[in-house]
Formats: sequence, structure tokens, C-alpha cells
Amino acid sequence: MKPTSFCSNSAETLPSVVKKIRNFVENEVIPQESLLAKNDQSELLALKEKAKRMGLYGNFYPEKLGGKFSRLTDYLPLAEEESRSEYGPMIFGSESTLDIHMLNHYADEAVKLNYLESLASGNIVASYAMTEPGTCGSIPDTLRATAQLKEGYWQINAKKWFICRADRAQLVAVVVCTGDESVPVSQRLSVLIVPADAEGFHIVGKNKIFGQHQGQCELELNNVMVPENFMLGGKGEGMAVIEQRLNFGRVLRSTYWLGLAQRCFDMMCYRLQTERNKAIGLADKQLIRQHVVKVYQALVGSRSLIYRAASELDNHLPADIAVKVAKLSTSQTLSLAVDSAIQIYGAEGVSEQTPLASIYQLARTTRILDGADEALISSVGKRLLNEYSDKHQEYSDKTKPTCKTTPIYKTPPISETPAISEKACIS
Amino acid sequence: MKPTSFCSNSAETLPSVVKKIRNFVENEVIPQESLLAKNDQSELLALKEKAKRMGLYGNFYPEKLGGKFSRLTDYLPLAEEESRSEYGPMIFGSESTLDIHMLNHYADEAVKLNYLESLASGNIVASYAMTEPGTCGSIPDTLRATAQLKEGYWQINAKKWFICRADRAQLVAVVVCTGDESVPVSQRLSVLIVPADAEGFHIVGKNKIFGQHQGQCELELNNVMVPENFMLGGKGEGMAVIEQRLNFGRVLRSTYWLGLAQRCFDMMCYRLQTERNKAIGLADKQLIRQHVVKVYQALVGSRSLIYRAASELDNHLPADIAVKVAKLSTSQTLSLAVDSAIQIYGAEGVSEQTPLASIYQLARTTRILDGADEALISSVGKRLLNEYSDKHQEYSDKTKPTCKTTPIYKTPPISETPAISEKACIS
Amino acid sequence: MKPTSFCSNSAETLPSVVKKIRNFVENEVIPQESLLAKNDQSELLALKEKAKRMGLYGNFYPEKLGGKFSRLTDYLPLAEEESRSEYGPMIFGSESTLDIHMLNHYADEAVKLNYLESLASGNIVASYAMTEPGTCGSIPDTLRATAQLKEGYWQINAKKWFICRADRAQLVAVVVCTGDESVPVSQRLSVLIVPADAEGFHIVGKNKIFGQHQGQCELELNNVMVPENFMLGGKGEGMAVIEQRLNFGRVLRSTYWLGLAQRCFDMMCYRLQTERNKAIGLADKQLIRQHVVKVYQALVGSRSLIYRAASELDNHLPADIAVKVAKLSTSQTLSLAVDSAIQIYGAEGVSEQTPLASIYQLARTTRILDGADEALISSVGKRLLNEYSDKHQEYSDKTKPTCKTTPIYKTPPISETPAISEKACIS
Amino acid sequence: MKPTSFCSNSAETLPSVVKKIRNFVENEVIPQESLLAKNDQSELLALKEKAKRMGLYGNFYPEKLGGKFSRLTDYLPLAEEESRSEYGPMIFGSESTLDIHMLNHYADEAVKLNYLESLASGNIVASYAMTEPGTCGSIPDTLRATAQLKEGYWQINAKKWFICRADRAQLVAVVVCTGDESVPVSQRLSVLIVPADAEGFHIVGKNKIFGQHQGQCELELNNVMVPENFMLGGKGEGMAVIEQRLNFGRVLRSTYWLGLAQRCFDMMCYRLQTERNKAIGLADKQLIRQHVVKVYQALVGSRSLIYRAASELDNHLPADIAVKVAKLSTSQTLSLAVDSAIQIYGAEGVSEQTPLASIYQLARTTRILDGADEALISSVGKRLLNEYSDKHQEYSDKTKPTCKTTPIYKTPPISETPAISEKACIS
Repeated sequence: MKPTSFCSNSAETLPSVVKKIRNFVENEVIPQESLLAKNDQSELLALKEKAKRMGLYGNFYPEKLGGKFSRLTDYLPLAEEESRSEYGPMIFGSESTLDIHMLNHYADEAVKLNYLESLASGNIVASYAMTEPGTCGSIPDTLRATAQLKEGYWQINAKKWFICRADRAQLVAVVVCTGDESVPVSQRLSVLIVPADAEGFHIVGKNKIFGQHQGQCELELNNVMVPENFMLGGKGEGMAVIEQRLNFGRVLRSTYWLGLAQRCFDMMCYRLQTERNKAIGLADKQLIRQHVVKVYQALVGSRSLIYRAASELDNHLPADIAVKVAKLSTSQTLSLAVDSAIQIYGAEGVSEQTPLASIYQLARTTRILDGADEALISSVGKRLLNEYSDKHQEYSDKTKPTCKTTPIYKTPPISETPAISEKACIS
Repeated sequence: MKPTSFCSNSAETLPSVVKKIRNFVENEVIPQESLLAKNDQSELLALKEKAKRMGLYGNFYPEKLGGKFSRLTDYLPLAEEESRSEYGPMIFGSESTLDIHMLNHYADEAVKLNYLESLASGNIVASYAMTEPGTCGSIPDTLRATAQLKEGYWQINAKKWFICRADRAQLVAVVVCTGDESVPVSQRLSVLIVPADAEGFHIVGKNKIFGQHQGQCELELNNVMVPENFMLGGKGEGMAVIEQRLNFGRVLRSTYWLGLAQRCFDMMCYRLQTERNKAIGLADKQLIRQHVVKVYQALVGSRSLIYRAASELDNHLPADIAVKVAKLSTSQTLSLAVDSAIQIYGAEGVSEQTPLASIYQLARTTRILDGADEALISSVGKRLLNEYSDKHQEYSDKTKPTCKTTPIYKTPPISETPAISEKACIS
Repeated sequence: MKPTSFCSNSAETLPSVVKKIRNFVENEVIPQESLLAKNDQSELLALKEKAKRMGLYGNFYPEKLGGKFSRLTDYLPLAEEESRSEYGPMIFGSESTLDIHMLNHYADEAVKLNYLESLASGNIVASYAMTEPGTCGSIPDTLRATAQLKEGYWQINAKKWFICRADRAQLVAVVVCTGDESVPVSQRLSVLIVPADAEGFHIVGKNKIFGQHQGQCELELNNVMVPENFMLGGKGEGMAVIEQRLNFGRVLRSTYWLGLAQRCFDMMCYRLQTERNKAIGLADKQLIRQHVVKVYQALVGSRSLIYRAASELDNHLPADIAVKVAKLSTSQTLSLAVDSAIQIYGAEGVSEQTPLASIYQLARTTRILDGADEALISSVGKRLLNEYSDKHQEYSDKTKPTCKTTPIYKTPPISETPAISEKACIS
Repeated sequence: MKPTSFCSNSAETLPSVVKKIRNFVENEVIPQESLLAKNDQSELLALKEKAKRMGLYGNFYPEKLGGKFSRLTDYLPLAEEESRSEYGPMIFGSESTLDIHMLNHYADEAVKLNYLESLASGNIVASYAMTEPGTCGSIPDTLRATAQLKEGYWQINAKKWFICRADRAQLVAVVVCTGDESVPVSQRLSVLIVPADAEGFHIVGKNKIFGQHQGQCELELNNVMVPENFMLGGKGEGMAVIEQRLNFGRVLRSTYWLGLAQRCFDMMCYRLQTERNKAIGLADKQLIRQHVVKVYQALVGSRSLIYRAASELDNHLPADIAVKVAKLSTSQTLSLAVDSAIQIYGAEGVSEQTPLASIYQLARTTRILDGADEALISSVGKRLLNEYSDKHQEYSDKTKPTCKTTPIYKTPPISETPAISEKACIS
């Protein structure tokens, strides 16, 4: 889970891998997208196996499990390529990256032995269950699932919904309360690993997203029993596990969204250069060019913000602001990019003839999942303002410049020049 | 003019200079802003002299003229600090940077001898006259000023307006037509150096901006004669001179705008932390935090775009797209930042009690000068789309990846890793 | 087709009908929406029959076919109520209103006899086929379908796609070229009525919209023969037929979109008042209130614009600007309203548990169909500017004020006071 | 103050007066704007006298004081014309309308006798002092000015700033606390009439707005004594006086802003039709047309919202939501209109050659004065949501439809048809 645990066992250069991924997506994945959109599992499996054979699988897993890169910032260019197709993260095994790092970092050794290899080989899939029906999003205070320790086993009762991959996961990390409401929420939650074939574990419904089932399910756990050592981290340490996963996950997902946004931009630009559109001079229209420029600016801005966030995670700096701003920004960028591309494609853009309609729906969910925009704005705004709270001290102590605006002034390239980090502290 | 001619004769580290500039602005300039706003020339002169004495003057002049940095990307952190006050660029001599580089690069040796030292020492000031009344902005095709070579002298007739610093400049670089309309505009224009005391050179009016004269003047040149060697570059090479100056100038000005935008952000945040505002919980309001987050996101995004543009100029890459996008973006960022700060300050924000009212007016002009937004969007959109025009070739020749999306994929930090530049070419 | 042909045979007051429709939608339609979403034809039929029995069917058909209102402005409040459910316009027969008016106005008497009664009774459904694959939207110049008169029959060859209701229509109005490219497009097009069981008429595919088939089909007409009198209007008069239908249709559809937008607003506001959301104070958050206020403002603004457009159509005034602005605005309003409601509902908002996901998809198509935003902006902008083209005349003839800004100053309530219409001309 | 007190003693038709005002502004005021901008008092006085002579002065004063219209909705078309020039409201005496209605409604008869006639004749001017330095905008809770009754006189101590017209007012309505903090703010405030020549009344400074003094002053009242009957309304009833003035004032000011916005739109459109701009095809550019269409849409929408608000005031309905939404919207419209016009005019737009620079500065203040945007959004959002608070009752009592969405469904034209008001109650 910690970026420090990232490792490098690749003999290849980054550009070489990036190129392979790009070619694989371009030549193998994208031509099969219409099949994959119909949920063709055999095609998916075939592509996954091919990616494994070519050494393109699990690129950001821990070193001992085959990962290639030890720094998130190194993985980003690769991740963008993986995700130019919505099916990329499944095919390259990246959908398990978060689960693997979480288990690798927090699970008991016995649990690791049970599951890590199988996860890394793609033989099994894990899921993560936090959100509950009737509560407000994923606000930890409102969670009602419980686990009680009874004779060496956790007895779990929970209702969860909109749980990704729950339809095909062999194990689910379930967030539960191991304390009552008298315990502060920061010490109330725990995360338990639950095998999907445990007695009392039920998939009670499939949640549709925009009219289609995409793997999200509603779960009920009735007196499910799991061994005591199936807890990630210690009892009441769930918030730490959740937050680490969340920040790490936000950066990864933002990068995948960026890959899709770039794809939309590329599609839009190529489309404008087709003979048919040249004939009517579409690319000469200012409102069309405005689409192009706005998306381009958004892409470049979001890419920079993601890089900053990843860099802070890599360097064990407080990354909360950077991560949330990157997520907010990339969500906007993907929404803008796919919306613009649809506008250029017209009716075809909302039809089954392009991946845009599907990406458009995904884009809408990005402003809700991983923290709704409103919650993130409020939280980031608070954090940013805190940086300015001891104004009087700063102003009275000019000889000792403080670091108040560090997160603002420190741009990625500058942060790489050691000398400048001092400057960052000045500002 | 060329970034290659940038040089470094500073023994100090960048962070050390940055710190000095920041302290100077904070302690010397900002406390005098209300005096400076009243056009107090003696105060201005005193600060300029003080900056010189402290070795903080002309930081980005050519090496031989005292400049400290050879790369634009190195100068950016400094430039942001210089420009936290609107008066900074005058006090630190940065208002002459463009003129000095232009003369250094394009002027005849005799002309350089005449003027460069005086410009660099701040004893004289230069101006640049392109825009004409009755024409559309600075569209080169519509320029009507003329110069004809007569017995070793250029005879100039021109009307120009909204010419910055014209009220105190000792020499003016005037854009003229040296060919008639049969000559393509790319070969029609030339740039001539005109001493302000030349016979026939008249300041016929002062242009007010938002009700206040800020140095812009309307000029008439009636049969002004200047020696043949007062031309910058060759006859008909004006467009090259203009464009180089423009791109370089756009990046510098964007950085100055960013410095002001950061100041507005800082002011807004500190203001929200005053006792008075804490008492009414202003910083807890979501709409207030939204202001903070949006400005922060804009600042970080624009800073990254400026860095990219500067980096391309430093590396002699085609920088047109990057420069224009940086200008568009920073103009928006400054507008947003000062607008938000005013909203937080309320009536005081539009009064004379803060610099915000003045910055707000400046911000409005940024969307017109150096290319109106609409013109830039159209031009950048066209350039971006051109990158996608030979799609079919690219798709049929997979073994030879092209560089079509270089400007998109190449983020600043990545571009510094040589290995990645190959990736950039792949995409 | 002409508003003049609207008639009134209702003994009821408008508010009484509005109330009935509202109750019907609230009590009969909305509770069945999840069934209807699964394309339950028997449920749909049952609701349609019930609406007929209650005299709530075909409310805006021509008088002789049972319509109740002779003015579009009178119908608007009703139309909003009909469309609070996406299924309303089908259940109340409003999906045939355009076709019935088109036939009533343009069809040969024999054709009317054949089809009008059946359409008005809901026994058959009509469709309208303009858009073609491989062309740019519905730009008339690019249409390639042809019809040639041969021995009293039109021989039609055409490819069309994204044709609404084509899967269940018994007749299709097909836009064809009856002249070659030498004929100006304004005289090149004609509209022919084609029975869906005609030989050579093929549904060759179902177009999916956002992954789901919603009735749009791809058609091929291979040497289909229809009698000479099956043409609407005369040969080459297709543009007039198209444009009348389009303007009338834009106002109707905008009203239906507004009804949906109002539903989204109501849902969002009620949701914020649930116990669960009160418990976490969601309605007290400023970013939430911002959603509410922005949608409210948009709703009121669009309602006013629709009313203006309808009023101009009712009064046989040039309505082109008003209609297009109403369409642009209502499309934005629906997009904003459903987007905001989804944000309030969170994951449920994109699930199958609310109608929001489906409305969101519809909202996206509104910016493409009936004229893409970009095309409308360009067209309206041109028309508005034309009002100002003879500036010099106006300024030199102050004693005879012109009507230049009529469309701007004439607000709905003012236009109802005759005295003011003169004022409108002044301004 | 109450709309009911509005009266009509005009024999003329509204269109006739509207036409006269329009011609007066066009022919008399606008040509003198550059003089007026230089604060030429004699020119201002001459125009005021001319307006009086032509019977165009004080158009919305109470009947007995020469007003022409008894309904705000009738006055709106006139008000728009008056305000096409920023100097209109001064010249037509409209700057005193609020003060006159306030005194007419709330002042003691003796005070009326003293001042009303002089105000209505334009011989004296009144001012209104609420905002205080060091407090947050005009939040009533934070006001610190006091008045204590001593032997038949109110002894006033107050500091006020940003007080409009204070530099030339003969009397000032001052908001004071007549109770201490133990008294709820709704009963703590009172409004007192203070002659500007009272002992202890000092103008201690001139507040500049965007660098220019525009009449706003900073005031100090040190133990100023005014007779007991100089209070408007009763002791502790200040909030009612303030709120009535505020709502009425917001609608009037919104209308004046709209008049300016319409002027900007007209200027922009005419400018685009000049020969010079035609030559470069500016009006054919889509980004230019986009400016035109967006401003047009905003104008029409705001005009409709103002009309709704005025209509509710005329009809003594709860107008709070409508008034605040109209203010929010018109402020945005003016900002957009003048910003777009400046963009079209380029450098001239920010120069002294057009009124745009001045209008731009005014536009910025509209988002602060009369309630900052953020405060209004929060307040309106709360009120709108309150309409939905008894959802459960409504849903359980379908036979008794409630009026929850009245403010939404009731559009201006509909509200004029009595039958529809019932519908409004249904929705």
C-alpha cells in the first residue's frame, strides 16, 4: 500500500513498455471493444492471457508479485495507455492493484499466503464493500455494518450495495463497525476479508448503472463468520486502511480516467479530419475549435495535477489536497472530453458505434464515487485555508519563512530540483 | 531573444534569489503600493535604485548585461515573486526584458552600442508600437503604417495607439509596412527603432484604461526619418521579429499574471482567517471554499502550462501551441483569482484599500492584449487539429510511430526524463 | 401545421384539465415507470386506453380530431404536466401530434382519409425519416435519398438512420431529393409518405442510444413505390414542410423537456427534505443550495423563452430566433436539472431506482437532435446580428424609430398589452 | 413604499412615454456622456431641468408627487429606457425614488412636510447609510451604530462607509441599533433621518470605487441629535423598513442594470455591423456569434425574472424568492453583456472612448451590493427547499393538492389568466 513498497524488477525501459501497452491496446483491445461491450467473457479471458504472455500484466503490483515499477510517477504514463480502452484495466490486471497492495500491506501472513498469489495471477478477483443502502454515500459515520468477535471468529452482519466486481469476486474486503456509537468513528471501523463462499454471504441484487448491470451488486451478510486473523490492520484501525486505499485509488483511477479522456480527444480530432468532415469545413468552425482547445487545456492541467499527487505519495508527503484536487480535476476533464467528442460525433456518439456513450456514463459516475464533488470541495477548501491560519505568526517572524504555501508553489518540475524545495518553503 | 542566448552569471542559488525578491516585495514594495498607485515617481525610483543596489535588478537580461539565468524555466519562480506587486516588473527592471532581448538579438551593432547599456541600467526605457487605430486589434494584415527608404534613411508615417510606456520611453520599436499590399503580409512588415525625440514623432493623446491613464499613448509619426541601420532584422522580416517577441512576451507576462493571481489567492485566504471573518464562520461556508478550491486548481494548472511553454522555448521546440494555451489559461486564472478575492473582500475589494480593484482592471485587459481569446482559440484549435491530419499514414505505418500527440502527452516532469521523450514520440 | 388550424372543442377549463393530467401522471404513470422502463407494452397500452377513456388523449390534435386547445400557449401548461414522466407523451398520444398536424396541413385528401383518423385514435403510429448515415447530422445539403416519378408512382431509394418510432410505425414520412445537385437545396427536397409494409422497405438495424434500443432504427428503401399523391406539399417544397415541422416540434419538445426538468427539480428538493438527509443537514450546505437555485433560475428562464416562442408561432410572427433560443435554453436546463438531481441522489441517481439515469441520457441527446447547439448558436447569432445591419439608416432617421430590437424587448406579458406592442417597435 | 400606494396621473400611454424617454436618452444624454463622465455638474443639471420641462422626471414617484404609474410592472419598460445611460437615473430623478417612497410610507407627517416636496422636485437628495467599516457587508447582526433617546432627541453615534450620494445629500437615513445585543436583531434596529448639516455629522473620507470617487463616502456621526419624530416606522422596526426598501430597490436596480445590459448588447451588435468589421468578417465568426446569443438569452431570461418579481410586489405576494433570483440573474446578465461587448470592442472597450469600461466596473459591484451572490444563493436555496418540506403530507393527501411549487410554475403570462392561478396551486 505504501509507495515505498513499490519495487522494480523490470529490465525494460519505461518507454519500451509504454509502447508495447499502447500497441496492445490499439491492435488487440480496441478492435474487440464491441465484443467486450457485450460482456464476452471468453474474449476478455483470451486478451488477459495474451497480456500475461507478453509480460504486460500486473504492471504495478508489488515487486515480489511481478510488478515493474517502484514509483507511482513512473507508472503513470503506462497507466494512461492501459486505460485508453475501458477494458484495459481488467485485461492488464490493474483492477486488482489496489486490493493486492492493501492485502500486501495490511493482511496477516496466513491470509497473504491464501490469496496474494492467486490475486496476482488473475485467478481470483477481490472486491471492496463500504457503501450501504439508506446511508449517505460513503460517509463513515453513517455505516451500520457490524462485526463482533466470538470465540476466535468475527461474526459479521451487513448490508452493502453498489459493490464493484461483487458478481465475480472470490473475496470481499468489508468495512464494519467493531465499536458502537460511543466510540469515535476514527476508532470504530475495521476491515475484514470475507470469502464470497462463506455461509451467510448473499448477493441479493444486481445494481444497474445507467440501465445496465456492470458488476455492481447488493450484498447481505447474515452472521457470516471469518477467522480472527482475517482483519486488515488492527481492530478499530479501519479508517487508516480506508484512507490509504482511497488516496492511492483516487490517483490510479484519475489516471485511468485521463487515459480515456485522451482517447476521446484523439477520437474527436481524428474525426474532424475525416474526408467527410473536411468537405463541410467542420474543423474550421470556431465553436468546434473551442471544443478542441478546452479539452486540450483540461487534459494538460489534469495530467499535471495527477503527477503532483503521485509525486507527493511517492515521497511520503501529505498528499490529501493534491490527491483530491487531482480527482476533482480529472473527473471534470473526462466529463468535458467525452461530452465534446459526443458533440462532434453527433448521433453516432450516443449510439453503440463508438465507445463514447459508455464512457459518458462512466464519466457521470466519477463526480459521485470516491467522494462527491461537493464533499471534496468542502474538504479541500478547509485544508487549503488551514495553511493560512497562523498568518500573524508568519507576518511577525519574517526571518523564519514558513511553508504555508508549499502545496501551491511547488510545481512538479521544480520539486525535482532539490535547491528549489527550499524556495518552496520560502513562499 | 533566443533562449540560447540566456546566460548565467549568478553565484547565488535560485532559491536564495527567490527569497530575496520575495522579501523585497513583501517588505519594500507592498507597503508602498498606495503611494505607487498615485504615480509617485520618486518612490518608484527609490525602490528601483534599492533593487539595483541589492543585485535584484534585470534578473533575466542577457548575461553580458547582468542577467542571472540562462533558462526561462529557471527564471519563472523568480518572475512570480517579482510580480506579486503590480509595480514589481518596473522596480526590478523586468519591463525592459523583452526590449533588451529583442535589440540584443536583432539590432545592428551600432544601435546596440547606442542603447543596450542604457536600457539595462534602467536609464532609458523602450516601447513597442504595433496596434493602430481603426484596425482590428493587432492583426498584421490590417496595419497601415509605412516606411520608405530614402537616401539611407527610413521615412516613417504611422498612427499607433494603446502603446505602453510611450509617455516615458526614449525609443520606440515601430512596426511598419515596407511593402505594399501585393507583398504577402509575411514579407511586408519591418520593425524600426525610433528615438522619441525624432522630428515628426508626436504623442497626440493619452489612452485611458478603465478611466485612468496608465502610460498608454496614441502616437503619430509624420515623415520621421531614422537611419537605415535602425531596422531590427532585415527588411520584410518584421513578422519573425514580432512573433518571437510575442511568444517570449506571452510567457513572461503570463508568469507575471500568475504572480498576481497567487497574491490574490493568498490575500483571499488570509482574509478568511481574520478574527472578524472567523467570528461569522465565513471559512466554513461551502461557497467560500468553492472559491478557494477553484482558484487553487486554476493556479496549479496555469503554472504547469507556463512551465511547459517555457520549457519548449528553452529547448527550441515549436512552442506556439504551448505558449498560447499558457496565455489563455493564465489570463483566465488571474481573472478568476482576482474576482474571487474581491468577492471575499466585498466593498473593500473594489475600493482603494486593496490592490484588487487595480488588478481586476488589468485582468480584464489580458483577454484582449497579446491576442484576444477568440483569436487564440481559433489559432490553437487549428494547430492542434493539424497534428491529427495525417491519420491514415499514422495508422498504416505502425512500425514507425509518429510524434503527432507530442504536445499533449509530454508533461513537464516526463520531458525531463530523456527515456520518456521516446514515449512521447510513440503516442 | 399552422397554429391557426388549432382549435378548441373543450368545455373544460384549462386548469381543470391540467389538474387531471397531473393527477393521472402522479397516480397512474409514475408508479408504473419501472415496468414501462422494461418496455412492458401491455402496461403502456392499458395506460393509453385509460387516458383515452378519461378524455385526456390527443390534447393538442386539430379540433376535428379531438384536440382541446387552439393556441400553443394554452397547451404549454398541459404539455409540461404530460411530460413529467418520460412515458407521458406516448400515453397521452402526444408523440403523434407533429405527424397529425403535418398530414392535416400538407397531405392530399385521400391520404388524410387513409391515415388521419387512425393516427388520432392511436391505432397507428407515424415516423419521420430525415437523417442519413455518413452525412453530417441533418444538414439538408448532404441528403442523398432520391425519389423519381415513374408512371404515377414515386420510386424511392434511401438509407436513413436514428429514425424514432420506426420499429412500430405503420407509415414513415421520408425526406428525399426530387432534384439533382444543380437544383438549389431549397427546391431540391420533398417529403413522401411511405407505408411501412411497402415492398422494398426494410428495417436493417436497430440503433442503440446509450446502450439501449429505444425505438430508433436504420432503414433502407430499395425501389419503394408510392402513389404520386403521397407527397406532402408539392414537389421541391420539402424544405418548407421540414422547417414548419421543425419549429413547431422544437417548441413542443422543449416543453416536454421542461416538464422532465421540473420533475427532476421536484425530486431533488423532496429528496433533500427526507429525514435521512435532514439528519446530516444536507439542505443546509451552500453547494447543495447552489444546485437548487441554479436549476430554479434555469427553469424559470426556459419557461419564459418557450412561452415567447409559442406566442410568436400562435401569432404568425417570425419565430425562428425565439424557437431556437428556447430549444437551446431548455436543452441546457434539462441537462442541468437532471445532473443536479443525480448529484443529490448519489449512486441511486445513476441506478435503476430512479428515472434520473434515463433522463440523463435523454438530456444528452437534446444537444444534438433538432439542430446541434453549435449550429443553432451560429444560426441564431447570424439572425440577431441581421437586426442591426442597417445601423446607419436607423441613426440617421431618429424620427422614425425602427423595430430592430423587437425580439429582445418584447417579453410575453408586455406583448399581451396591445399598447406596448408599439413600444416594442420603438425600442 | 407599498406598491399599492403607486398611482397614475398620466394622460399619456405607456408606449408614448417610453418613446420619449428613449429619444431623450439617445439624443440628449448619450451624446453628453463623455462630459458627464468628467463629473460636469452643470451639464447634469441642464439635462435634469430639460427632463423636468418635458415631463419626464420622477416617473415612478407617488401620484401626489407627480409619478405616472401605479404599478411597478408598468414602470419597467420605462425604467429600462431611463437606464440605457449610467446617468439616466440621476437625470430622470429615479435615484430618489426609493427614498421618496420610503419617506412617504414611513415618515412622520412633519418630516414629510419638511422633505418630500424638495426631494420630488430634485432640489435636495437623500442618502441611505447602513454598511459599517469592519463589519461583514450589511449583515444586520454586525451593525454597531447606536441611537439613544434623550429628552425628545435621538443621540446618534455611528461610523458608516460606502454610502452612496453622501457627498451631495441633504439628509441621510441612518440604520442604528436602538437596543443592545440582548434584543433580537429583528427588533434591535431602527432607521433615523439625519440632516447632513446636523452638528456632529462628518464626512470623514471619500471611498473610491475602482480608483475613482463616485459619490460614496465614509461618515462619522458623533453625538448627532435629531428630534424623536425623525424615526422611520417605530423603534425597533428598522428591519421591516430595511427589507421593504431592499426588495423594492433590488427590482428597480435590476431593471436599471438590464437597461445597461441591453445597451451593451446593442452596442456590440452595431459594432459588428460596421464596415470595418464586415471587412474582416467578424460577424461570421462562431465565437462572436456565441457572444451575441449568450447575451441575448441572458437578457430575455433576466427580463422575465424581473417582471415576475415586480408582478409579485404589485400583487402583494411573497416576493422574496422572485426578487432575489431576479437580482442574481440580472447581475450575471449585466456582467456577461458588458464583458462580451468589451471583448468585441477590444482596446477601445476598456478605454475612455466608450461607456463600457465604466459599466464593467459597475457590473462588478452588483455581485456584492444588495446582498452578495453567496448570501443570496444560500437564502434563496433555503426558501425554495422550504416549499418542499412537508412532502409526506402532500403525498398522503392527494385529493388536496398543495401549492408547493407555485413560485416555479407560475410564469408571468399565465399568472395573468385567473383560471391558471388555480393550476399554479395544483402543481
